[in-house]
Amino acid sequence: MKETETARIISPREGRVIGGMLGPVVRGVHDHLLRYQWQMLNDEIPGAEPSHCIENFRLAAGVKQGEFYGMVFQDSDFGKWVEALGYKLMTTPDPELEQLADETIDLLGKAQREDGYLDTYFICNGIKNRWTNLRDCHELYCAGHLLEGAIAYYQATGKRKMLDIMIRYTDHIHMWFTTKNLRGFPGHAEIELALCKLADLTGEKKYLELAQAFIDRRGLEPYYFDEEQKKLDKPFFPWNNTFGRTYAQAHLPVRKQFTAEGHAVRALYLASGAADVALRTGDGELWEACKQQFINVIWKRMYVTGGVGSTYTGEAFTFDYDLPDDTAYAETCASVALIFFAHRMLLGETKGIYADAMESALYNTCLSGMSLDMKRFFYVNALSVFPEADEKDPNKKHVVPERQPWLGCACCPPNLARLLCSLITYQYTVRGREVQIHLFAESELNTEAAGQQIHIAVHTDYPCNGLVRISAGKGDYDLRIHIPGWCPRYTLQRNGENVQAKEQDGYILISGPFADEELILNLEMIPRRIHANNRVRSAAGKVAVAQGPVVYCAEEADNGPQLHLLQLARHAELKTVETELLGGTTVIEADACRTGFPDQEALYFSDVEERRTPVKLRLIPYYKWANRGKNEMQVWIRET
Amino acid sequence: MKETETARIISPREGRVIGGMLGPVVRGVHDHLLRYQWQMLNDEIPGAEPSHCIENFRLAAGVKQGEFYGMVFQDSDFGKWVEALGYKLMTTPDPELEQLADETIDLLGKAQREDGYLDTYFICNGIKNRWTNLRDCHELYCAGHLLEGAIAYYQATGKRKMLDIMIRYTDHIHMWFTTKNLRGFPGHAEIELALCKLADLTGEKKYLELAQAFIDRRGLEPYYFDEEQKKLDKPFFPWNNTFGRTYAQAHLPVRKQFTAEGHAVRALYLASGAADVALRTGDGELWEACKQQFINVIWKRMYVTGGVGSTYTGEAFTFDYDLPDDTAYAETCASVALIFFAHRMLLGETKGIYADAMESALYNTCLSGMSLDMKRFFYVNALSVFPEADEKDPNKKHVVPERQPWLGCACCPPNLARLLCSLITYQYTVRGREVQIHLFAESELNTEAAGQQIHIAVHTDYPCNGLVRISAGKGDYDLRIHIPGWCPRYTLQRNGENVQAKEQDGYILISGPFADEELILNLEMIPRRIHANNRVRSAAGKVAVAQGPVVYCAEEADNGPQLHLLQLARHAELKTVETELLGGTTVIEADACRTGFPDQEALYFSDVEERRTPVKLRLIPYYKWANRGKNEMQVWIRET
Repeated sequence: MKETETARIISPREGRVIGGMLGPVVRGVHDHLLRYQWQMLNDEIPGAEPSHCIENFRLAAGVKQGEFYGMVFQDSDFGKWVEALGYKLMTTPDPELEQLADETIDLLGKAQREDGYLDTYFICNGIKNRWTNLRDCHELYCAGHLLEGAIAYYQATGKRKMLDIMIRYTDHIHMWFTTKNLRGFPGHAEIELALCKLADLTGEKKYLELAQAFIDRRGLEPYYFDEEQKKLDKPFFPWNNTFGRTYAQAHLPVRKQFTAEGHAVRALYLASGAADVALRTGDGELWEACKQQFINVIWKRMYVTGGVGSTYTGEAFTFDYDLPDDTAYAETCASVALIFFAHRMLLGETKGIYADAMESALYNTCLSGMSLDMKRFFYVNALSVFPEADEKDPNKKHVVPERQPWLGCACCPPNLARLLCSLITYQYTVRGREVQIHLFAESELNTEAAGQQIHIAVHTDYPCNGLVRISAGKGDYDLRIHIPGWCPRYTLQRNGENVQAKEQDGYILISGPFADEELILNLEMIPRRIHANNRVRSAAGKVAVAQGPVVYCAEEADNGPQLHLLQLARHAELKTVETELLGGTTVIEADACRTGFPDQEALYFSDVEERRTPVKLRLIPYYKWANRGKNEMQVWIRET
Repeated sequence: MKETETARIISPREGRVIGGMLGPVVRGVHDHLLRYQWQMLNDEIPGAEPSHCIENFRLAAGVKQGEFYGMVFQDSDFGKWVEALGYKLMTTPDPELEQLADETIDLLGKAQREDGYLDTYFICNGIKNRWTNLRDCHELYCAGHLLEGAIAYYQATGKRKMLDIMIRYTDHIHMWFTTKNLRGFPGHAEIELALCKLADLTGEKKYLELAQAFIDRRGLEPYYFDEEQKKLDKPFFPWNNTFGRTYAQAHLPVRKQFTAEGHAVRALYLASGAADVALRTGDGELWEACKQQFINVIWKRMYVTGGVGSTYTGEAFTFDYDLPDDTAYAETCASVALIFFAHRMLLGETKGIYADAMESALYNTCLSGMSLDMKRFFYVNALSVFPEADEKDPNKKHVVPERQPWLGCACCPPNLARLLCSLITYQYTVRGREVQIHLFAESELNTEAAGQQIHIAVHTDYPCNGLVRISAGKGDYDLRIHIPGWCPRYTLQRNGENVQAKEQDGYILISGPFADEELILNLEMIPRRIHANNRVRSAAGKVAVAQGPVVYCAEEADNGPQLHLLQLARHAELKTVETELLGGTTVIEADACRTGFPDQEALYFSDVEERRTPVKLRLIPYYKWANRGKNEMQVWIRET
């Protein structure tokens, strides 16, 4: 059950990730990625697929002539970028990007129609068709992202211009979807999250009510999208999505959706939005549905890397325990969305399963979404990659063995940026007199709990090792600290003395008051084997290796080709080795073998003895793979 | 190199399969399947997808009004059926079916246009567009099948009506594609085979030359199909095949096609046609290309079941060693086509690799194409079937876990029928003074070699066991007998005395003359393990089991669900057990184990000991699977 008091969301203004493993990543996003993405949105990166995102705003604003180009949801990329920038600006000034944002916001102002409408695709292509294809056309999705961006940018800078534009647009949407009696809801959830934020910011209940309506309207007969399709201006909308109601979670009322179905990003955004609404309305039935769906994901439909989405077709969930590794979709955005969902669940109940899922998605499929130099990106994060198959087997054409400089459908890179720029939000929450620590990035937090200003600092190289020093600043509050699900044993010292803290739901509670104290949490972190539930066919007879939350993989660069021939014995020692590889990497090594038959021309044979050649298996963190050219990779290794 | 003298093709008139394992199968085709298929072609089977094949001829003949229905190549189903019937009638009268055939042939006569053209799709839908979409519209393919049917029916009955109709049509085609200067060639090879047969029958060289032209025109620039597409009457041809040139083997000149590419059935029909041409023209370069392509198939692109076609997309080959078992296409027709191809290669060179491929395809993927009662059919023959995945994973939607009463695209069932009704053709050939035995069905042959009438009888339960008694009737000829590639050891007795015959290229030569002698060939046939080349990723760490040419599989009906948990030790004894199962089956049993972790809710876990439960693994012949309801099946089993 949801706890009585909802935890308070930490603003990125209240802290910063400063060091350890994630500090440089966040700095990279601040210093490099936001600029790189700005150049992408402006088509300034040679060799990358054009974005046209800002250009579309220019066209809609009438300051330039030309044709809309890009995805129907291209506007959202600016929304996500300005949201990420807002989070950065909350702690780190950047006048140059701020000015670029302001200039683009001016464009938005010019592009906005007199009635408040603001979607470049429809403004450029024919506004009469707005709101007539909610299933496929992402208007509400784009509005949601722009609104989230506007809120973050306002909170960071105090500048109201984009916020005012977006409130005007949101009021326009509200009018259409309530007064004008449009009974639809978004084909791609997202605006629900933004509406809840706007309700929080303005105190206006109508925004929350609209979010709630978008949740409640789903899955009712007659099915809205079916009716919508019948009335569609077909020449204007030539495409026809044939994935059915489930694809956009329109198959059942949300409170009856107990399994994660359809397009994975849509499903998890919707679940996040539903949780947001339930948190604010106290709707227990909706909350329970969210919870069941979350459990369904993590216990039955999630890759060991925190990836979700088992099939390319519809970028979708398939069925329980169906987790093929070589045809996985596991979109970067879906893992970002899983973190959003888990975070909202944490606001309602402090349970380790939520923090564990955040960790798993963050340290694996989110980080794997970009190259170490943050210039190339994965959309799909498969767990087994054989480049020739990805090229020549149409079933695997979505699995690209090398990250791309940009993606025609560029949802993932800016999604990563907004996640990483607000990492502190996911690391901490405050519930009553508790400061809750869910993740262990090296960070500082200056927050308020139980009416006091509180300073917390975390010093750690986590997840490189499990030593976490927490400086608990002076104050009368409690600390609730996550003990990750992967951790078999831990010790806790408070001011140098061992403390026995009872673990409950994956957390320990250290009661205050504190007087500038030091807590040393030592999570036993050694390489470990992971096995999958019997029902996961792709993992039968196989083992994955992880250290802490970081899943490892074998890459051809370290192990030679034909990784499917590698075999790791059940009890072979897993050793960590510090290396200079890839900017400094803790690799895991083990004595293993490469099985196989003597090279021969025949495809099949009998009575040939298998050879077993001893080899040193070297595993690197999954998120670091594909930084050394196109080559094979496998997470799951055959086990003897 | 091709031998100087081409072997003579045995006519189904010259022999019959009478007993053993295949005798009842052939009888079943004669007595049941041909009738059942007639009913199918006439839409008389309730619950099956309609065929409309004969109805289309009625419409084209103008004896009925209505709209063409079915595939653009629906005519070919009658061609294949009448061809199969012809083969039956060569040894086994069937006045009832003969009359039905005659009535339909009358329809064909009425449907044929004055200029000779005869394709119901274009006659019904607009003849002005004939020959304008050779890539997709199968006109030449249908003509080829109808011509093959006409030839067989004429040879069986002496009735010329269909033959004359089809010669008229063929001459019409010849006129278009030579005099009228149409430079095209079939998108789906098939007519090449028929043209060679017609050249043989009539002695008219122009038919062979046309076949040769269809071979020689492929892969030349400007690419014919590319040009054709530009000129297409788009509203008439709404579909657009996007598979590219390779799909229809139009990417390279045939003599430069050294690997099997594109649509597997097309590829192997084309290779068969190319071999047919090379056999008749002595074109060594073309023959070598056929040979290289054959080697590419059997050494790099063939499933252990003799299935070919690794992907649903384009029903196509993918790349060397890419043989995924659960997404396999392995169309029944493609295995039939592999037999056609292998047979033609045998006509040129008596090599065991060809006979081995025929055996493998025949006893596995061909027979698996139909249920034991011959009322249901597989189009796709996957090697690993998990029904829920086939239903819910879009990547596996082509894998249907139960045979269907008929198939909308019904190419496979009548293809099986024509193969099985002419089995004797594949079992024997005559080359000079040699009678060659390639397959071991219990059969009688009355043929001519070296100017004498020769009687050969084979008595055997092969492939249930390896004992083959050959009665070599009186005469001055030699016998060349295939020693299957799977056979590790054999003995041969001639009139009760052991003979040491030297094996060459997979054959032994027993020199005549014979005076009503008995040869007893004893092929050591015990269950054996098969392993795949290291490069076959899907088979890494796995084993398949076979006995003789018959590949076995584990079915859920015998082994319970979750077959992926089964594990067979490398040296566990494989025992054959005679059972009453499925009409009498030699099953293979072994002590094996079922691995797995204690049942738990978690999807992933560490430090849980794997349990190994001893089980009796029971394997049945692959071709007999899916006769006991929808359930799991696996050919490749994990090995320890």
